[in-house]
Order: sequence, then C-alpha cells, then structure tokens
Amino acid sequence: MIMKKIFSITVLATLLFAGCCNDCGKSRVIKTAVPERPAGQADMVAYAAPAIDTVRVGFIGLGMRGPGAVERFIHIPGTKIVALCDLLPENVAKCQKMLEKAGLPAAAEYTDAEDAWKELCERDDIDLVYIATDWKHHARMGVYAMEQGKHTAIEVPSAMTLDEIWTLIDTSERTRKHCMQLENCVYDFFEMNTLNMAQQGLFGEVLHVEGSYIHNLKDFWPYYWNNWRLDYNHENRGDVYATHGMGPACQLLDMHRGDRMTTLVAMDTKAVCAPDYIEQTTGVRPNDFKNGDHTMTMIRTANGKTIHIQHDVVTPRPYSRMYQLTGTKGFANKYPVQGYALEPEQIALSEMPDHENLSSHGFLSPEQQAELTEKYMHPIIREVGDFARKVGGHGGMDFIMDYRMIYCLRNGLPLDMDVYDMAEWCCLAPLTALSIENDSAPVEVPDFTRGAWNRVKGFRHAFAE
Amino acid sequence: MIMKKIFSITVLATLLFAGCCNDCGKSRVIKTAVPERPAGQADMVAYAAPAIDTVRVGFIGLGMRGPGAVERFIHIPGTKIVALCDLLPENVAKCQKMLEKAGLPAAAEYTDAEDAWKELCERDDIDLVYIATDWKHHARMGVYAMEQGKHTAIEVPSAMTLDEIWTLIDTSERTRKHCMQLENCVYDFFEMNTLNMAQQGLFGEVLHVEGSYIHNLKDFWPYYWNNWRLDYNHENRGDVYATHGMGPACQLLDMHRGDRMTTLVAMDTKAVCAPDYIEQTTGVRPNDFKNGDHTMTMIRTANGKTIHIQHDVVTPRPYSRMYQLTGTKGFANKYPVQGYALEPEQIALSEMPDHENLSSHGFLSPEQQAELTEKYMHPIIREVGDFARKVGGHGGMDFIMDYRMIYCLRNGLPLDMDVYDMAEWCCLAPLTALSIENDSAPVEVPDFTRGAWNRVKGFRHAFAE
Repeated sequence: MIMKKIFSITVLATLLFAGCCNDCGKSRVIKTAVPERPAGQADMVAYAAPAIDTVRVGFIGLGMRGPGAVERFIHIPGTKIVALCDLLPENVAKCQKMLEKAGLPAAAEYTDAEDAWKELCERDDIDLVYIATDWKHHARMGVYAMEQGKHTAIEVPSAMTLDEIWTLIDTSERTRKHCMQLENCVYDFFEMNTLNMAQQGLFGEVLHVEGSYIHNLKDFWPYYWNNWRLDYNHENRGDVYATHGMGPACQLLDMHRGDRMTTLVAMDTKAVCAPDYIEQTTGVRPNDFKNGDHTMTMIRTANGKTIHIQHDVVTPRPYSRMYQLTGTKGFANKYPVQGYALEPEQIALSEMPDHENLSSHGFLSPEQQAELTEKYMHPIIREVGDFARKVGGHGGMDFIMDYRMIYCLRNGLPLDMDVYDMAEWCCLAPLTALSIENDSAPVEVPDFTRGAWNRVKGFRHAFAE
Repeated sequence: MIMKKIFSITVLATLLFAGCCNDCGKSRVIKTAVPERPAGQADMVAYAAPAIDTVRVGFIGLGMRGPGAVERFIHIPGTKIVALCDLLPENVAKCQKMLEKAGLPAAAEYTDAEDAWKELCERDDIDLVYIATDWKHHARMGVYAMEQGKHTAIEVPSAMTLDEIWTLIDTSERTRKHCMQLENCVYDFFEMNTLNMAQQGLFGEVLHVEGSYIHNLKDFWPYYWNNWRLDYNHENRGDVYATHGMGPACQLLDMHRGDRMTTLVAMDTKAVCAPDYIEQTTGVRPNDFKNGDHTMTMIRTANGKTIHIQHDVVTPRPYSRMYQLTGTKGFANKYPVQGYALEPEQIALSEMPDHENLSSHGFLSPEQQAELTEKYMHPIIREVGDFARKVGGHGGMDFIMDYRMIYCLRNGLPLDMDVYDMAEWCCLAPLTALSIENDSAPVEVPDFTRGAWNRVKGFRHAFAE
C-alpha cells in the first residue's frame, strides 16, 4: 500500500515535469505587476518643461563621480552651482576649492548628516538636483527632489528595483519634473557617430544590438564608500550594472519611440573571482556571494529585434562595452576594435571614393572608416566634440552629457533621456535576477510608458529652432 | 503515520518544484524524452575500437566538401580509398581523376541512383564510411553505415533532430562503431593552441566560452544542390548550424568529461535578409521564412559555466566564429582580432621575458602573443601543422581533422570526438527551436551519455605510447 502510494506520486511527478505549463495553458513567461497609472496623471513621452534661462543646480554626492560633474558645470554656460552636499565635509571642501579656482562664488554646503541632502532638495533657488551617490540612495533622492519641485539627474543605475523604477516614473509623471539618468556612454564619439549613421539608414534596418559592461574592478573595489559596490554584488544576482550597454543599444533600436522590449532571459556563471578577491583581502572566503562572474541577457522587442547584454566586473579581461550593431545593410563594432562593414551599395550611397572591390565580408580600411566618420559625424559632436575633449570626463562624453541636459533645459526641449529610458535601462537588475533565479525563465519587460511607446516614431536628439 | 508520510512527500514535492511556474506550480523548464538505454548496451565514452592497420574508406557525397576530403586522404598514410559515391556521375569522375593523378588505383563507383550509397555501405572491404552529403541525409546514412559494421565520419551537422541524434547514439552503442562528426574548427591553429594553454591552466578556471557561425552565405546559396541549405533555413527556426561554435567551446569546458550542459535558452530576430534575397532572386517574397536573421543561445552547465553561441548566415557581417574564453586568470579572443589577456602572474608562470608592467586590462603585444603561441603550441600542431598548411583545406584544419581520425583508428585509440560530442553540438538545432517557439523558455539539455558524463575527467587528445 505504501509502496503503491510512493509509486503513484512518482508517476505524477514525472507527468507534471514532462507536461510543464502546457497543462494550465498559461504562459511560461514570468510577469511582474504593472501599477495602474493614477487618474489625472499623464505620461512623460516627449515631455518638455518650460525653458530655464539659468539652470541653478545642487549636487548630492561628491565622492567619486561628483567632483568631475562640478568641474564640468563650471564650463557650461547658463548654469549656476548653488549648493553642494556630501556626507564628508572634506569632499564638499574639495569642490568649493574648484569653484574658488574658477572665480565663482562659494556654494551653500550640506554635510556631516545623513539627511543633509533633503535640505538641499528643499531650497527654493534650485532647478536641478544632480545626484552622484551610491546606487542605493539614487532613487529615494530623485523622488524627494522631484517632490520638492526640482528636475533631477541621477547617476547610473538610477534605480535598482522595480519598486524604485515605478516610484520614479509615477513621481516624474505626477510632478511634471524631468528624471534623467546620467548615462554617459550614449555620448561617446563612436556611439554618437554610429547612431547618426544608423539614423541616416547606412546600416539598413538595425536588427540586433550588443552592449556590455566588462571592466575588471579589482583595483577599484577599495575606493567605494563603505564597500557598497562589492557588497551590492555580494547580495544580488543578475546584471546589476547594465545601463552602459543598454543605453546605446536602446537608442539604436528606438525604444519606446516605435518599438519596445517584450521579453528577456538571463543566465550567469557561478561566482569565483569575487569570492577569491574577498578571501585574498580579508582572509575569509564567503560562501554566499551571489553575483555570477559573467552574466548574460537576451532581450526581444515587439518589432522582432534583439539585444544582447553582458556584465563582468571581476574576471581579468580588457575593458569592453561591446557596442555592436547588425543591420540588414551593414555592421558596426566598437570593442575590441572599431570597425564598419557595409554592403557595397551603401558605401556608394555615402559618396565615398575608392569603394570598388569592397564587400561586407571585411571591415573598411582605417582610411575609409575615417572618411565615413567625418562624413557622418554627429552634429552634436561636430559642435562641441573638441571642447568636450578639452574639458574631459571619460574622454569628453561626460561633458557632452551634461552639456546636452543643460541645453535642453535652457531651450525648453525634451531631454535626450527621459524617465522611461531610465526605467528600461535599469530594469535589467531586477528582471535578470528574476530570470536567473527561475532557471533562466523568460520574463516580461513591462511597458513602462503604460501605452505610449508607439506615439513617437524614432529616437532623435532635440534641437532649438 | 500516514499524515507524517504525506507531509514528508509534500515537502519533497515543494523542493522538487522550486523555481516553478507561479500559475500552476509546474516546472518552467521544457524537458524532452530521453529514451532508456536498451538492456545489454553500453556507453561509448572513451571507447576504443581494435586498431586498423590500413583504414579502407568509402566516400559518400562528392559535391562541395567531398572532393577536398578525397584529396586530403591521398596525403594520409595508412589509408586506402576504396569507393566513391555521388548522385552525379561527373562528381565521381572528378575524384577518380584525383586518384589517377596521385598514381592511386581507381575506386569503385556508386552513382546515378538514390540508393547507390547503401551498396557502398554494404561492401565488406571498407572500415570507414565518410559522409559529406546535404544535412538531411547525414544521420540516416551514418546509421546504415554503422549497421553494416563500418565506422562512420559525418560532416556537420551530423543530425538535425533529437530522433536522429538518439538513433545515431543507440546505433553506435549497439554496433560498437565510432560515429565521429567531422567538426573541423576544433582543429584550427588558434583554437588548438589556446586549448592547450587552457589545459595547462594558463587561464585559470575557464568559466565562460563563446562561439558563433557568422558567415554571410549570400554568394554561396546558388551552389547548394537543389537549394537544400536555404530551404532548410526557410523551414526551421533555431540555430541550425551551431557545431563550429559549439565544438571548440565544449572541448574547452570538458563536456561529458566532468561537466555537462543542463539548460539552454534561445532567441532570434525576425527574418529580413533571407526573404529579401529570395525576393531579389526569384521575384517573389516568401512570407513563411522561419529562420531569424540572427539567433542567440545561452547554455549553462552542471558546474556553473556558461556558453554563448550565435548564428547569422544572412546579414552583411565579416566572418566570425567568435571563439572567446573567459577564465579566472585570463582571457582569449579570436575574432575579429586574435588576443590574449592574462593576469601578470600567469605570464610570469609562462617564463616569458618582458612581463613587467603588464596587466590583464589590455591584450598582450603581438610579439608577446607570438612567444606565447610558440611556447604553448599544441603538440599536434607542432607535429603536423606545417604539412597541414601545405595540403590545405580551410588553411589546414581539415587535414588535421582527417589525420587525427586516421591516427586514432590505426592506433586503436578513442577518437577526439565521440558520438556524444556529435549529440551535444548538434542538439542546438532542435532544442533552440523548442526554446524560441516557446517564448525563449529554458529547455533541458539531455545527458546524452545517459549517466557516463562524469567518468572521464577532462578532455584530452589520445596519443599512442
């Protein structure tokens, strides 16, 4: 009798496993909750705030990324640095010195208290709060700043959880304040010029895009305040830092400007290098380090395009953000070597000389690539590229990012990156974890615009008349 | 007592269902049937057949890949070309001329009839049947050849469906005949030398491997007999040609020699370029072309490693098999540029000069890479590399492949690639289609060895004493 019972349960289990979800007729795709948009609240797609003549800014977080931002703002006309905030007084002092050196008035200081940043947000003489703290404080600070009537710019990733993402979206929609994620990699020179080529049709229809954050942070771990970054990786599986790859990929594919992501799947390796590092530096090997050494994500869009994203901050690899696009007429690749391959007729189209005997089976020569880059240089790069290189910040892309935000705010234009870009690029952290923790099951990517993803056709940078 | 029993079974069931569908509590992983091994039949892991002094071979399929194989066998000592088979008499005649030119006796001819190949298999003076027909005939010919008591070597992919794979496995196990897939890319120079470095521990523990078949076949489509290859892509989604990426990846990860693939997920773009091509060449655009322009697969192993594989034979991209490995101590990459990056202590280990100031943040210099390659040259490359380059066949790798097979057969050694390698590398065609057609759901990769995957520790080429 007992034997029979065990046998029948074994058979049942076998059937259940073989049948999978076909039995209940439900999708195998994991869905997360999409909160209903509160009544009377409108989306922020293509939203433009009233123009601001002089953008008055307060900075929160002056440790790693903050000082560079202050330095860049010194060089951007039409801005005023009103307030500086950091937990450590010496970080504030360092930035005050930068202002002094530039002949600018001292900024108000907020420091030495956990909640000092709130007072900064509450000032009535600030238009923009610029947040460059650790990841865990990003979203709550952004929400609070918008609630105080400020536009907000938040370092990457601006949000780590779906709850943070939806709260930022709802707050931006409700307050009509911009929430821009400070994703600098969409402003790098190769990316900008290649985006321009793509928008001019040089690659035909872009079908597949790849991006990554592959950067061995071994030498950097000791410099993060309270070890927050390594700790975050310790506690979380999934691609926790996807925006540098996602940003350029999503701009190329016009995300929520005529297309949208529908499904993602993710997979990781076990964790080896990070536990090794902790053992080497502390003498104790953790047995609960969650983030895999190498994490991969595949994403499909409503229009049948795909994105591939990778994350690896622990293995000994040369730096790579990949940046690769596959189109029906051409191909571009940034790492490990910059290269373009085009169907011969596309090269003729570009009116380049010496296009005989070319084929897409090989990359263009360095000379041809230089010619192509000159011809298709993005207008923003043509305008401020040289100056950006001088000011610096990752070779200039940081400057272009800040410059563009201020340009759009001063001209009352939609920003290059809206709150839904933030959501789409940040959602990989929670959604890839969900996929990985469920045997790489497909996970639905929510429509963060809640219905507005197909209203604007094609991503374009806004320019004043 | 009964309550206790039910409780413990419930606990068991809950544990079994961890990571299951939220809606019905069933596994999200799609499982395919694994046929039970027939009684009295043993696995073929590390199987060695009795040594054969002179390997007598019959070739089936002399269209695209066959003539090159005949040419190579002319240069391999200890072989005898006994029979030639092709549907078209002119293809057979062309190969006879090659024998004549080499001063070898004419081979028996089988031609001009759909079933001529069966008569070749039935001869009693052949040890090995070498099959280079279209994909659809591969498996049935291999099965028939083994049933006639012949070892069999089958071009890639040797099998397109799970049924074909399991039939080849069962036939090989039952007849004790080798079933080797003719995967040439595991014998390319960079791959062989890098595999040797990996086996010597230069990269630490290899965690992640990538491979691909990215080859724009636009110029090749007209040359496939009866358009079979484009037709196959027309009718099938999924990575239908994965073995060139999978072979080197699986050798690096010791598949079924201490590790095994457990789960895969796949995703594709829509089909654009192939329908474009058909429209351009026939005037009619198909609306039912199934194979996406770009297909991606992620695979996880029992030991927590990952593999990433891509397939794209239609977009204008430079050729790439990717071949990339990420280890805990180093990194290697073949396409688009060959590069090695190593932790400095690994370079010291290799006793190379000039290893000061090196870091894994960049690739080694060309000079250092050349030194590394010389030091870690695979013994097989050292032995026959120069001769292989002279005989040719994709730069020499085809020759090494045939040479190794004959060497192992003549010395009574396990072949470099067994029937389970064939299964593991070919299973992507059916399993990726299953994943893609189910919203990229995870699919279980069967243990094709049916229990023997962990008996041999580490993949190694066999050598005679």
